[in-house]
Parts: sequence; structure tokens; C-alpha cells
Amino acid sequence: MNERTISKAVIRRLPRYYRYLGELLDADVERISSAELSNKMNVTASQIRQDLNNFGGFGQQGYGYNVKYLYNEIAKILGLDEVHSMIIVGAGKLGQAIANYSSFSKRGFVLKGMFDVKPEYIGTKVNDIEIMNINQLSEFLKVNSIDIVAITIPKEAVSTIIDIIAESDIKAVWNFAPVDLHLPPDKVVENVHLLDSLMQLSYNLSEYEHTN
Amino acid sequence: MNERTISKAVIRRLPRYYRYLGELLDADVERISSAELSNKMNVTASQIRQDLNNFGGFGQQGYGYNVKYLYNEIAKILGLDEVHSMIIVGAGKLGQAIANYSSFSKRGFVLKGMFDVKPEYIGTKVNDIEIMNINQLSEFLKVNSIDIVAITIPKEAVSTIIDIIAESDIKAVWNFAPVDLHLPPDKVVENVHLLDSLMQLSYNLSEYEHTN
Repeated sequence: MNERTISKAVIRRLPRYYRYLGELLDADVERISSAELSNKMNVTASQIRQDLNNFGGFGQQGYGYNVKYLYNEIAKILGLDEVHSMIIVGAGKLGQAIANYSSFSKRGFVLKGMFDVKPEYIGTKVNDIEIMNINQLSEFLKVNSIDIVAITIPKEAVSTIIDIIAESDIKAVWNFAPVDLHLPPDKVVENVHLLDSLMQLSYNLSEYEHTN
Repeated sequence: MNERTISKAVIRRLPRYYRYLGELLDADVERISSAELSNKMNVTASQIRQDLNNFGGFGQQGYGYNVKYLYNEIAKILGLDEVHSMIIVGAGKLGQAIANYSSFSKRGFVLKGMFDVKPEYIGTKVNDIEIMNINQLSEFLKVNSIDIVAITIPKEAVSTIIDIIAESDIKAVWNFAPVDLHLPPDKVVENVHLLDSLMQLSYNLSEYEHTN
């Protein structure tokens, strides 16, 4: 099975399959047909079959899909069978929200540190993790092996940490700051631009109002 | 100029153009060539010209783009020339983070109310907005005209408010809860699924590690 040739569109749907299968597991559902899955997910059954065929199928004629098996296989494809160490730079509300999401640690994303510049945050704890001074970040990354950094600081502050991240062994950046990061090509970057998302909503809203 | 035939991919790039042009405006840049814009944004100059031609061009041969004009035109396309009233359901860290983003109100998204179930939140204020009991939501929506609701409650709680939203005059839902909402087709929905985004990052990370 060659995972390398799978289209990005399929990959983008996988977390959603994974989410649904997790809900089925929680509800003790052992198997499901592509028709039932299709009905639940608002995706055509043929789309589901096509998508899952990319990974060798998993389905059996007349039986459907084994929920637990499919769930675990998708987890492997998404790299969720491995533990990822993570730090959060920016201990404001958004950083704290991320630190508190139990669903992240359940999927193997383990918080190892939080950093901020604000004296009132430093030394306090969020979800048992002590917030450190951002000027300790460089040193921290030299002695700790960290896979992922979540960036939740204002865009003006990004320039103060971007070189430290660029030169570190961090592999992936989950960026919430509303700027495009310039990083070496060996760093994987995933952006969550909340304002862009809100503008998209605003566009669809005016679009809808003009056509109805 | 017919905006209705513009592809979704172009629309998805508009917030990013808007963001860059805003930065140029802040830096008092009056005009910019597609080559310079291309260089800054890591998009080809021909892509930029093509994208902006969808809206009648705005560029002049030998002059480039007038930054302020282009910024304002994109704002209109995105519906940012109108004021949108917004409420937030869920006053936890994420809801508070959204309430505190000054960049939202600057773009005309005006917070009118926040709701939660937790007694310790109710009556306290975030960014001058008093947090109300969620059982007042239905009544609030009958007497206030609200365009957008941001949903920042745990997925288990969504079922307690979804009917209220479905029956209200709310036009758009900005959904952060990790569930797919089932709403009448006249509601515009924009999802921000943080766990999906983190899984995408995780996939790209393992993908990168396997190929390098």
C-alpha cells in the first residue's frame, strides 16, 4: 500500500472520518455500512468507498466496515499512533484554551511547556504546566526534544521567536498568528487564521443575501 | 462585474490578499506592482493578476495597484463594508479569546452578547460584554437582531442550543465545536475544527518524516 499518492482532498477528509468513527466507537458500534456512514456524514457512499479504498479498503462485501479497525488504521495514517511533544508560545486565552483541550492529549499530543512575556503569567500553571519566560525558550529547546510548537502570540511578537524556532529541532508549527511564517522548508506549517475564517463566513453571508 | 462566477479557490485567497494589503497600508505604501506583491505573498505574479482580474482588475499598466483602492474593493467583496452583529455561545477560554480580538471589531464584527451555563461566568464581563445565562439565549434572539453566532461550547452541549439557533433569525454560524451541525439551508456555516487541523499537521509531519 502506497500512501504517498493519496490526494490532498482525501487527506483533508480523513480527520472527519476519524471523528465520526470515534463517536461510533464511543457508542459501542462495531460495524457500519458505507451507506450508514454516508447518511451520518453527508458524503455519498461511493465517495466514502473511494476514499477508503486509497488505504486498501478495510470494507468487506455484505459486512461493511469494522469500526475499530478502520478507526485505528486512519489513526496510523494520520500519525496518531505516535506521541507528539508540543509546546505553546503565548499563554493568553487562546493558548490556555489549547492547553486545556483534553482531546489533544488523548490523541497523543502531549504538552511539555508554555511560554509568555507577561510577568503575571510566568510561574503560574495551566493544566499542570508551568508558564515559563519566553527568554528561556531557546535554552528549553536545546535540552528538550519538541515536535510541535503552537504559536498563539500577537503577530507583532512573532519576529522575536521565529529565528529560535527556525534554528531549533522543532518539526512542525501550528500557527495561530495572522502572519505567514517564513521558515526553512524542513518545518511543516499548519495555519489557523481566525480572521481569514471569519471573513470567509462574511463573504458567504453577503453572497447568500445577494442571491436569495 | 459579476461576482457570482468567481471560483471558491479565489475567494479563499482573498482574506490573505486583504491581510497583506492592510499591512502595506499600515506601512503607508500607496501602490505596489503585482511582482512586488507576488514576492511578498509567495504567489506567482500571474496568479495575482488572474485573481484580481476576477473583480475587474484594479491594476494599471506601468503603475501597479493602488493599495488603498484594492484594499477597499476586497473589503466590499468580503462584506467587510457592512457591520455584523455577533454573539458568542460559550464563555470559556476560547470564547474569551474571540471576544478579546480587537481585529474582529475593527472589521465590523461587533460583539453583542456572550452566553454560558457556568454560574461563575454569568454576570461577569469580557471586553465590556456581560455574560448571560444560556437559558436567556432564546429570548435574547427574539428581541435582538444578530447576524452571526460563534459556538465555542463542548460538543456535548451543542444539542441544547442548536434548535434555538435553527429557529432564530441568525444568518451565520461560526462553529468551533467538533461536530457537524445540522441546520436549515438558509444558515451559512463556517467550521473551525482545531483537532482536525492538528491531525492534518500530524499527517504532514509523518509524511515529511517518511519521505526525508
